[in-house]
Amino acid sequence: MPNSFGQIFRITTWGESHGGSVGVVVDGCPSNIPLDESDIQQELNRRKPGQSSITTPRKEDDLAHIYSGTFQGKTLGTPICVMVMNKDARPHDYDEISTKFRPSHSDFGYQTKYGIRNWEGGGRSSARETIGRVAAGAIAKKVLKLLYNVEILACVAQIHHIKAEFDLEKVTMDQIESTIVRCPDPEAAEKMIACIKEARKEGDSVGGIIHCIARNVPAALGEPVFDKLDADLAKAMLSLPAAKGFDLGTGFEAPLYKGSEHNDTYIPLNGKIVTATNRSGGIQGGISNGMPIIFRVAFKPTSTIMQPQKTVTVEGEETILQPKGRHDPCVLPRAIPIVEAMTAITLLDHALRQNSLEISRLLH
Amino acid sequence: MPNSFGQIFRITTWGESHGGSVGVVVDGCPSNIPLDESDIQQELNRRKPGQSSITTPRKEDDLAHIYSGTFQGKTLGTPICVMVMNKDARPHDYDEISTKFRPSHSDFGYQTKYGIRNWEGGGRSSARETIGRVAAGAIAKKVLKLLYNVEILACVAQIHHIKAEFDLEKVTMDQIESTIVRCPDPEAAEKMIACIKEARKEGDSVGGIIHCIARNVPAALGEPVFDKLDADLAKAMLSLPAAKGFDLGTGFEAPLYKGSEHNDTYIPLNGKIVTATNRSGGIQGGISNGMPIIFRVAFKPTSTIMQPQKTVTVEGEETILQPKGRHDPCVLPRAIPIVEAMTAITLLDHALRQNSLEISRLLH
Amino acid sequence: MPNSFGQIFRITTWGESHGGSVGVVVDGCPSNIPLDESDIQQELNRRKPGQSSITTPRKEDDLAHIYSGTFQGKTLGTPICVMVMNKDARPHDYDEISTKFRPSHSDFGYQTKYGIRNWEGGGRSSARETIGRVAAGAIAKKVLKLLYNVEILACVAQIHHIKAEFDLEKVTMDQIESTIVRCPDPEAAEKMIACIKEARKEGDSVGGIIHCIARNVPAALGEPVFDKLDADLAKAMLSLPAAKGFDLGTGFEAPLYKGSEHNDTYIPLNGKIVTATNRSGGIQGGISNGMPIIFRVAFKPTSTIMQPQKTVTVEGEETILQPKGRHDPCVLPRAIPIVEAMTAITLLDHALRQNSLEISRLLH
Amino acid sequence: MPNSFGQIFRITTWGESHGGSVGVVVDGCPSNIPLDESDIQQELNRRKPGQSSITTPRKEDDLAHIYSGTFQGKTLGTPICVMVMNKDARPHDYDEISTKFRPSHSDFGYQTKYGIRNWEGGGRSSARETIGRVAAGAIAKKVLKLLYNVEILACVAQIHHIKAEFDLEKVTMDQIESTIVRCPDPEAAEKMIACIKEARKEGDSVGGIIHCIARNVPAALGEPVFDKLDADLAKAMLSLPAAKGFDLGTGFEAPLYKGSEHNDTYIPLNGKIVTATNRSGGIQGGISNGMPIIFRVAFKPTSTIMQPQKTVTVEGEETILQPKGRHDPCVLPRAIPIVEAMTAITLLDHALRQNSLEISRLLH
Repeated sequence: MPNSFGQIFRITTWGESHGGSVGVVVDGCPSNIPLDESDIQQELNRRKPGQSSITTPRKEDDLAHIYSGTFQGKTLGTPICVMVMNKDARPHDYDEISTKFRPSHSDFGYQTKYGIRNWEGGGRSSARETIGRVAAGAIAKKVLKLLYNVEILACVAQIHHIKAEFDLEKVTMDQIESTIVRCPDPEAAEKMIACIKEARKEGDSVGGIIHCIARNVPAALGEPVFDKLDADLAKAMLSLPAAKGFDLGTGFEAPLYKGSEHNDTYIPLNGKIVTATNRSGGIQGGISNGMPIIFRVAFKPTSTIMQPQKTVTVEGEETILQPKGRHDPCVLPRAIPIVEAMTAITLLDHALRQNSLEISRLLH
Repeated sequence: MPNSFGQIFRITTWGESHGGSVGVVVDGCPSNIPLDESDIQQELNRRKPGQSSITTPRKEDDLAHIYSGTFQGKTLGTPICVMVMNKDARPHDYDEISTKFRPSHSDFGYQTKYGIRNWEGGGRSSARETIGRVAAGAIAKKVLKLLYNVEILACVAQIHHIKAEFDLEKVTMDQIESTIVRCPDPEAAEKMIACIKEARKEGDSVGGIIHCIARNVPAALGEPVFDKLDADLAKAMLSLPAAKGFDLGTGFEAPLYKGSEHNDTYIPLNGKIVTATNRSGGIQGGISNGMPIIFRVAFKPTSTIMQPQKTVTVEGEETILQPKGRHDPCVLPRAIPIVEAMTAITLLDHALRQNSLEISRLLH
Repeated sequence: MPNSFGQIFRITTWGESHGGSVGVVVDGCPSNIPLDESDIQQELNRRKPGQSSITTPRKEDDLAHIYSGTFQGKTLGTPICVMVMNKDARPHDYDEISTKFRPSHSDFGYQTKYGIRNWEGGGRSSARETIGRVAAGAIAKKVLKLLYNVEILACVAQIHHIKAEFDLEKVTMDQIESTIVRCPDPEAAEKMIACIKEARKEGDSVGGIIHCIARNVPAALGEPVFDKLDADLAKAMLSLPAAKGFDLGTGFEAPLYKGSEHNDTYIPLNGKIVTATNRSGGIQGGISNGMPIIFRVAFKPTSTIMQPQKTVTVEGEETILQPKGRHDPCVLPRAIPIVEAMTAITLLDHALRQNSLEISRLLH
Repeated sequence: MPNSFGQIFRITTWGESHGGSVGVVVDGCPSNIPLDESDIQQELNRRKPGQSSITTPRKEDDLAHIYSGTFQGKTLGTPICVMVMNKDARPHDYDEISTKFRPSHSDFGYQTKYGIRNWEGGGRSSARETIGRVAAGAIAKKVLKLLYNVEILACVAQIHHIKAEFDLEKVTMDQIESTIVRCPDPEAAEKMIACIKEARKEGDSVGGIIHCIARNVPAALGEPVFDKLDADLAKAMLSLPAAKGFDLGTGFEAPLYKGSEHNDTYIPLNGKIVTATNRSGGIQGGISNGMPIIFRVAFKPTSTIMQPQKTVTVEGEETILQPKGRHDPCVLPRAIPIVEAMTAITLLDHALRQNSLEISRLLH
């Protein structure tokens, strides 16, 4: 279970950064959906290292191959296995990590939990694990697009202290992809890029905040009690490496409103019921209401930095960790497709769950 | 599945606000744990309506009865069923709601999802559903206390624009329970109480932020990828009525740090490895590290207010909703035991999951 | 998990024979299904003790009450809680069992597993647990009837060495209910009743075989690999107290055929594709093919007998167990509605699962 | 979910017979278990085609590669991905199947369920899918051996009308592997081999019965209600291609005993409690009692035969299917390692589940 996500559209990922491969099995994908490797590759390309001057200089092509679940260009309804081989192993870079815990990294957790860890790179906690998520997300995106014309866009809204100004409701993929930091405010984007480059020069790292919007999500997705749509989105986002917070609609600003100010009034519009405002962020009582779904995810600065740091050895003795390797000074630009992927997976899973309940409509 | 939470320590709740009863089945509770109804009742009393001048004046005793799973004062390892009967039905209060959607409430969602809803009160979306959670949480708290001496404390940190000042690391249950708003800063508490009373007078409502700390949580809880401990806590918290956000450790403030400032340095202390700071909030890479777990939950102002509101009828025509009934102008004081309960359930579930993995220790 | 069954239509039962109550929470029932307590009671009446001269003389009315999940006579889509109070406790009957393991009973298993057991009666292993199953099955039956006109009939085919002769394809509920042993062959039924009465007189018990048929099950139910429809039926049946075997279609006789004799030839019939024979028992490759589903379940003789038996004490010392109490000399007549219930639950769960996949039909 | 099995030790398989690969992800394997590819390969070799004169002459080496989850020869506790590439595709063999349903095969089911199927060979329903199971089973076997010295042996007890005579309690791996039909009765084995060869010559197929024993299984495995150990074994076995029945201990013969004859008397033996007989087959009330677990699985004759057969086209018109390809006239010899694998997976999953519950022993 720990490496699976979703109830009906269910993904299972595997792989360490320096093992043989990373990949995903997607179980529960509807059949007869047109799908080939290019659908997946275009999303992986947005995630891959070395894509711009502000990501890690590591070169990894991350070529995806589909090993099962499709036939003559369509999904079969059987599990879809997608795999990307690992390359570029530089195990000697990692000798020191075999005996020392990197601060704020998961080394200590894995060692405590399993009594063993793959210390070559991040092992299982490496961001390479998210390749499987992005591959599965590409499939989910395609299904959601075909079924409901759902569009999911994430973008960088803040890097360190630099906040962008933009209207999320109107943001386009083109705007987001037009800057390498994936921020739709070009002015802020320039400052963010400079900030990230500065951090790299200092051997330091920076975090930030990603905004995400999902448009055309049908109403009625989400379960009323534990599996609320926003609860599952929160889990999906907090499952991302370096994520520290999630909020929906007005989120942490909600307390600044009174109820009379915060409530979204229903109004009729072209035969549909919509809300005049969208402070709820598209989900009320855990169920989508047909308005755009809007949320934020906070990311801490990457814990891997290029400065000497105090830490302890595996035996618990004080030591100094010397910096080594090639790393992202800021994960957010590459996290954009991952946030979108997890959003798509969560939404499609709930769409399929909702569909199963609609059997009783046959009666009417 | 939608009404269940947890993998091994698994709770399933049922009940509408005006049906026969609300309750919970707790499956997977370890056996031989001393347990009787008073363990549960003391937590329910902290949640019940009418307990103070700032909660709803509705009187509900919410007496819990255990129907299975214990024998001679100890848990059997079989499912524990706890039920609380519903009372105080005033169905005529709800006639209007049968034909109109309350703004920012779940009426619209339920109607869209199920094609039917229990419009007497909140139905399934009523906060009465949380009775089952608090009952299950009382059991989880007891097990965690016995096994690891875990202590879980939640408290109100903000109401509307009033922010409390306190040191979460040192907060005690007595401090929290010493004010009816459950805020450990007595001065802020007074202002919060005034603010809530003011909101009620205006027929309005206010939201706020709850802080939570879990002490003595053993290291190694949480799964590395999707079922990260913080991801499951995020889900648990966003599953609460009116919750709009969750963050852990530095959370949404994390971007303001650089990596070199944010990393928690490991240090040896009395033969254990601890961190010098706790910006991670007790969880790194999804796994508890033995430091206190610290998080925040944001709540919007309650959507039920005592003012006339524009809305639409079930048929989609514009109308005005007239206020009626007796409601909490602010849910946070009563949400404290619910936040604690969901925290306890999440932690115990992961403790049991971790325990299942430790089988391989038999080999060493 | 251990006390839940089903993925989408998911039931969770609780209760010991001498605790407060037994019951079930049904999660995932489609909404808008007409349902009241009489739907459930009529099935419970077929299961209840004391209904005839060949069941236990214990009198239990087993009155079901619905505590949630319905509104104005229809299901809400929320969890349906059904509970039956326990009565007729005679704890003194059980003093001996508190210190001795009943042979072939679950006492030893519970004690070993949990380190504690409710020794008043069967505790959790009592057949009273099946009340929750029958209640949930009554709901599933109703939904299946409404949606697909599915009819599920189980009947007794063998008691001890007495085998009935009948054509399962044509059996009717009336035929089954016309004898207290629920065998549609009246001649065999008489012998079976005599056999059961003889067993009771001897303080002994007898087992037998139940046949079950499900008619009008739509094609396409069942998942191809692990969650094959017959695999889930096998699990459902082996989860019943005293069940020792399950087979489908030709079952254990299948090896006596050659492939050329066993294969069911497809033929067109009134615009549908059917099979000329039904040796497969309605399921091929794990998926229903639209033919009647046909299977058998073997039950051992009840382990509780009214004769002194050698056994050991909880401390492992040899002793004699003296018979006491009032018990069924044969569980099969009362097991009929339980077999039907588990069949209905399994079929409806798979129908809902199948429905969730049909989303892609929207595309065509 | 449909392609996953197990709750804690959870396997997910993928792959069609003529897609890119077949494989398995094993999630929840305990860490620090010595494991390399030879552990897996030796089991796959017992399953592979072309291994003897009574299996299909198709040559497939089925070389397993581990892609994740191990490090320096030990398991990491992270998902273990094992993959075997597909070879030997002869798609032209399958042109006819693209338009005709093979009798008693799953073609019709897949087409009805998904509206699409991979008609090149068996697609997802091919026995190649079981490669993933055998690989996962090899891992489970190793863990069970290390932890408890569990030994699992399956063997052929019947082919068509030929029944073997042997004492299952004493059977050894050597005896089983000494004949190519994997039957420990050498005389019967010879007749079985002749029978299978005869069936092949006739272009026909035969089925049979497999017996399985699991020794040294600790007591207390299995959950009391739905997830009974025998219920999960039944599901595991009925999930195998061509399986038609499962029974445990006396199974379908149980009704021939009276309760007084069937009950297994407890006796003290060397400080342990054992049973004098083992009619229960090692499981009572769903929980293992420490005695050997003994069950049978019935397999129908393979549906693929080398004779012309009546059937219908995808459009529902009558037609004749011409035989083609190379197939096993009898699946049982190669099914032996698959039965053992599913047994091991089921037992280990329950061992880990039991382990999670034993947390409360910390208290005593």
